[in-house]
Amino acid sequence: MKALVFNGPDRAAWQEARDPGIQEPTDAIVRVEATTICGTDLHILAGDVPDVPPGTVLGHEAVGRVVEAGSAVRGVRPGDRVLVSCISACGHCRYCREAAYGQCTGGGGWILGHLIDGTQAEFVRVPFADLSLHSLPEAVPAKEAVLLSDIFPTGYEVGVLNGRVRPGDTVVVVGAGPVGLAAIATAQLFSPGRIVAVDLAPIRLEAAKQLGADAIATAAESEALVADLTGGLGADVVIEAVGQAASFELCTRMVRPGGHVANVGVHGGPATLHLEDLWIRNLTLTTGLVDTFSTPTLLGMLTDRRLPAGALVTHTFELGQMEAAYDVFSRAADTGALKVVLGEPQHDELTLRAAAA
Amino acid sequence: MKALVFNGPDRAAWQEARDPGIQEPTDAIVRVEATTICGTDLHILAGDVPDVPPGTVLGHEAVGRVVEAGSAVRGVRPGDRVLVSCISACGHCRYCREAAYGQCTGGGGWILGHLIDGTQAEFVRVPFADLSLHSLPEAVPAKEAVLLSDIFPTGYEVGVLNGRVRPGDTVVVVGAGPVGLAAIATAQLFSPGRIVAVDLAPIRLEAAKQLGADAIATAAESEALVADLTGGLGADVVIEAVGQAASFELCTRMVRPGGHVANVGVHGGPATLHLEDLWIRNLTLTTGLVDTFSTPTLLGMLTDRRLPAGALVTHTFELGQMEAAYDVFSRAADTGALKVVLGEPQHDELTLRAAAA
Amino acid sequence: MKALVFNGPDRAAWQEARDPGIQEPTDAIVRVEATTICGTDLHILAGDVPDVPPGTVLGHEAVGRVVEAGSAVRGVRPGDRVLVSCISACGHCRYCREAAYGQCTGGGGWILGHLIDGTQAEFVRVPFADLSLHSLPEAVPAKEAVLLSDIFPTGYEVGVLNGRVRPGDTVVVVGAGPVGLAAIATAQLFSPGRIVAVDLAPIRLEAAKQLGADAIATAAESEALVADLTGGLGADVVIEAVGQAASFELCTRMVRPGGHVANVGVHGGPATLHLEDLWIRNLTLTTGLVDTFSTPTLLGMLTDRRLPAGALVTHTFELGQMEAAYDVFSRAADTGALKVVLGEPQHDELTLRAAAA
Amino acid sequence: MKALVFNGPDRAAWQEARDPGIQEPTDAIVRVEATTICGTDLHILAGDVPDVPPGTVLGHEAVGRVVEAGSAVRGVRPGDRVLVSCISACGHCRYCREAAYGQCTGGGGWILGHLIDGTQAEFVRVPFADLSLHSLPEAVPAKEAVLLSDIFPTGYEVGVLNGRVRPGDTVVVVGAGPVGLAAIATAQLFSPGRIVAVDLAPIRLEAAKQLGADAIATAAESEALVADLTGGLGADVVIEAVGQAASFELCTRMVRPGGHVANVGVHGGPATLHLEDLWIRNLTLTTGLVDTFSTPTLLGMLTDRRLPAGALVTHTFELGQMEAAYDVFSRAADTGALKVVLGEPQHDELTLRAAAA
Repeated sequence: MKALVFNGPDRAAWQEARDPGIQEPTDAIVRVEATTICGTDLHILAGDVPDVPPGTVLGHEAVGRVVEAGSAVRGVRPGDRVLVSCISACGHCRYCREAAYGQCTGGGGWILGHLIDGTQAEFVRVPFADLSLHSLPEAVPAKEAVLLSDIFPTGYEVGVLNGRVRPGDTVVVVGAGPVGLAAIATAQLFSPGRIVAVDLAPIRLEAAKQLGADAIATAAESEALVADLTGGLGADVVIEAVGQAASFELCTRMVRPGGHVANVGVHGGPATLHLEDLWIRNLTLTTGLVDTFSTPTLLGMLTDRRLPAGALVTHTFELGQMEAAYDVFSRAADTGALKVVLGEPQHDELTLRAAAA
Repeated sequence: MKALVFNGPDRAAWQEARDPGIQEPTDAIVRVEATTICGTDLHILAGDVPDVPPGTVLGHEAVGRVVEAGSAVRGVRPGDRVLVSCISACGHCRYCREAAYGQCTGGGGWILGHLIDGTQAEFVRVPFADLSLHSLPEAVPAKEAVLLSDIFPTGYEVGVLNGRVRPGDTVVVVGAGPVGLAAIATAQLFSPGRIVAVDLAPIRLEAAKQLGADAIATAAESEALVADLTGGLGADVVIEAVGQAASFELCTRMVRPGGHVANVGVHGGPATLHLEDLWIRNLTLTTGLVDTFSTPTLLGMLTDRRLPAGALVTHTFELGQMEAAYDVFSRAADTGALKVVLGEPQHDELTLRAAAA
Repeated sequence: MKALVFNGPDRAAWQEARDPGIQEPTDAIVRVEATTICGTDLHILAGDVPDVPPGTVLGHEAVGRVVEAGSAVRGVRPGDRVLVSCISACGHCRYCREAAYGQCTGGGGWILGHLIDGTQAEFVRVPFADLSLHSLPEAVPAKEAVLLSDIFPTGYEVGVLNGRVRPGDTVVVVGAGPVGLAAIATAQLFSPGRIVAVDLAPIRLEAAKQLGADAIATAAESEALVADLTGGLGADVVIEAVGQAASFELCTRMVRPGGHVANVGVHGGPATLHLEDLWIRNLTLTTGLVDTFSTPTLLGMLTDRRLPAGALVTHTFELGQMEAAYDVFSRAADTGALKVVLGEPQHDELTLRAAAA
Repeated sequence: MKALVFNGPDRAAWQEARDPGIQEPTDAIVRVEATTICGTDLHILAGDVPDVPPGTVLGHEAVGRVVEAGSAVRGVRPGDRVLVSCISACGHCRYCREAAYGQCTGGGGWILGHLIDGTQAEFVRVPFADLSLHSLPEAVPAKEAVLLSDIFPTGYEVGVLNGRVRPGDTVVVVGAGPVGLAAIATAQLFSPGRIVAVDLAPIRLEAAKQLGADAIATAAESEALVADLTGGLGADVVIEAVGQAASFELCTRMVRPGGHVANVGVHGGPATLHLEDLWIRNLTLTTGLVDTFSTPTLLGMLTDRRLPAGALVTHTFELGQMEAAYDVFSRAADTGALKVVLGEPQHDELTLRAAAA
């Protein structure tokens, strides 16, 4: 098959790779209908994630169709259309028993495109298929569903649920990239009083407004705006979706006493925690990798057309155009890319859905 | 009356002060039966808390007897024996409605011995008496009850409850001063599997063992010990009760993925938060000033002799020996002082209780 | 003043009554701008609530303006426009400290128009004014705000919050009277997957649809519909808003294993609980009188025009038309009445708001 | 092999039965070291559980050793000593993902000795072995551990956790049979203020005291006692562990406003729910089959000798004495039986443990 293979820092190519096969009775093999590229993939390419061995197929997001299932797989069978979760889950370890799949100690967690071959390929082996695949109705467009592999559960679980957004709250989301936008979209499930999106890029702030942000601001403007909107008290919930120290510290300055700071961003270095100010403020700070326990709920909403996942897709490519897609995605500041989706060659989507009906 | 008056940095004296009087219909005046000294009082004396004006009577902990009550006070009346909470609560603001009394925006919060005259005196005016005083049975010794003004609710609420200690948990308490010891004592209300106390002073580690710690360690030993006890995973709950950056950072290294770090310590400077390691670990970090919502529950336990509050009292003095008491408490490393309690002159406690019965 | 006085079963009249005055320093006197009639008032009139003494002014819902405030009242002052909560709260008892104001043991709870004179009058004394009145912006129409005295917090707290509605849930509301409709309106704050309204009256089912119900059914149809919509599993949350045994039992048949039944209805007799079926089904059943802790949140939403309270008002009257209003409300099956609102004579609302600005 | 086979109502025998074998790759075969009899087994024998087909081996509790494991089993292997959970869990269905294993819709739930052959046998096939077996240290006595198959998780999860016992609470447990006693033992993990045990049998009340009940009462005495202990308010938590309407109704009379009634009892008929009294009292009533999510926690406590499981074992037998054990257990009123444990012939336990060390 063809796949996007990581050959060491700054060297990746869409090239021939060995077809995956069943290795454990709980595996399934999925033919990829659509996949996408994550900021993490760029970090791997840059050489920042040293535990990815050269030769690994990248990617941890996909929609596809099961072509083979191991003998212990009960939930899906060949022919089923599925969403591939970015998190694999053994289902038995201490963490999986609490639905903390991202922390799986039984061989799962984030392994696709990281410790084993991933989804930017024609086929992918998915371990622990019963917990790591989700049945996908034919009518749901692949390019929308693929955003539920990672982006939407991450924004929802690590941002909105960890931040405990409640009706009437003032919610600030710092960083309006794909995950921040997913947090903005899903925060509305709890009817906050207002959502403030903070970013530097006008195009991202515009996307934030279209996805439901009530106010937008640059980082420099944001503190004064939040103070003004809340009578000086601060926001109930602040979600960090950038992954930089300055951004995290901004979040801790904008939250009210008793409020929540939910860190979603992937950080490469430490931040300063001003405990001399914060010790007395009854804050709750959370961090986390996504667990994807919410994927069935989000998938139900997408199927009912209640989740605007498609709005994050700015570019589409055929699978074989993987290198071009990486180029566009890696130059997001220039190209305005949010999510780029790669899929099977040229079905008109309406035709596809009609055929499936 | 006589009181311990703060006359500016490093200048305090047990001297004549103006008798307090009712100022609001919700005030009560309490004659002090016992009070104690808090680490915060030393900080004020050192000049580290600039919002304390010279002339302020210090102290925020007391047991006493109501001598006068304002016209709107319904819960206590003259003659009632009471515990004075370190936190005053208006009862009506947004925070008080959620029992977050420490964050009261209606004129309460930590004000005694801080923004208004405090409890290290013969008499004290207590605002919002209905929420800030608790009826105290005559049989409960004052020197035990006074530890429920601040120390015990702080260790319990900000340490144990914020840390969400659960049956079977591994709990680490870093810092075995009075608040850390209160956390150790009250963590046992939730039957953790083991409690590890971390401190440098052998005398405090010994006290920790007597209050129920299963293991003790110095900071240098603690990481290896916790790793060993938990199969390398880390502790479920780590409570910071020191208030220093190094101690906080140690806590974030000892907690397991998905665990809780509850900061109780009062910090004078920032700490480094290693988000490059922690972003992926599903941590919950909490900070907080005590709210004292748990005081009635703790007082019930003390009355039933189920709370070992008295074990923290290492020295007792008469009220008039305030300056000597400060001297002993401020040299804790030499004197071994944990809590020093000052009380009415020389009643034999058993006699006192018999008289009350 | 004039007031609607209960003179014993089936005897009530809009007649002269003694002007209320301040009795406690925590009281306030409110001139009534708008009030409304509750089903409970009809029960009192019918003689079903024997603890209401003849001579009592009825009513527990109102919007008005403070004309006098006791010496201990801090949150409002004469001239302030306010919402009167149906629940009075002492703020100090065990229940008030947990925001369970409806269970207040310090002299509050549901007392207005029940144990003391109520709001269907030109003036009303409101005890514990700081917790029992809420400041109301001039721009909010009285006839909408008055629905937040009781109906909306009841549907939200006792129905939606007790039932723990979550995104994606199937929610069934049995009974589409005013409280059931308020539950339907506020359930949407948590983005359920669908809401099914059950009632016998077509006009109420139509109102349910307009307030956001996705499906409607009579009681006879409802079991099959819910089974069909949920693949036979049952609903996640079922809210009882009728107050009859048959309705409650229907609710317990429609809920899925692990689901919630939230009883909001006021019952006059017992129901049968089929524990032989239910013991194994991991149900949570809740009951409750409203606490009104959510009123500030709901009022914020109403002010932001995010709460469709006005949609429940089918008839308006001047205060002096109280007896006519009772007549219309008591014949709801004929008149189609949901909520009837009585207010100050004949201001055009826009004029009123302009005048206030 | 030999097993206790249900041959229709009132007909069961310890007889030859077919050796179990692996049927699915997720199965394991366990040689039984110890088993016990549950009240449910008596109901099956009486013909009250019609979905048990004649020919079924009874029993859902066991300790044993794995002799064979299917190809997909990862958590245990032949030779491992294990605890068999009374609940089997597919691990993938909607309920298993929330650790609600008792409601498993993927082929698990309570199936052992019910829908498939059970544990009162020399060997048993355990489906979904990875979630349904728990590794058991050699040092833990089988006759204690076997109480963690069902009795202890049931009392803890369905009684104590559903009832949300908190420090300082007044807890009433109605019914001091094995499950009620397990609730009494595990309620203490949350340090209630007092536990009141209610039963008719003096021997059971005596056992309740030994397991930690602070007060005991017959049903007739209990209402007055609880009222007296709580100043007329009622208990915070009442646990029903009898399974009869009168007992359930007693529970709803003894709970305070805002309190919890946790039903653990297995009911054969309906109860009357006095909603005319209860609608206003903010009650939470819960029901449930055990999920056994707490088994690892309880097993850790038992291993640390912090759980008095052995105190419930009144009689021990060899496996081959099954019929005699049933006789003793079914005449509990005469024999004083709480739990009867059947095990491998005559090892001295201390010898066994020494050998294992």
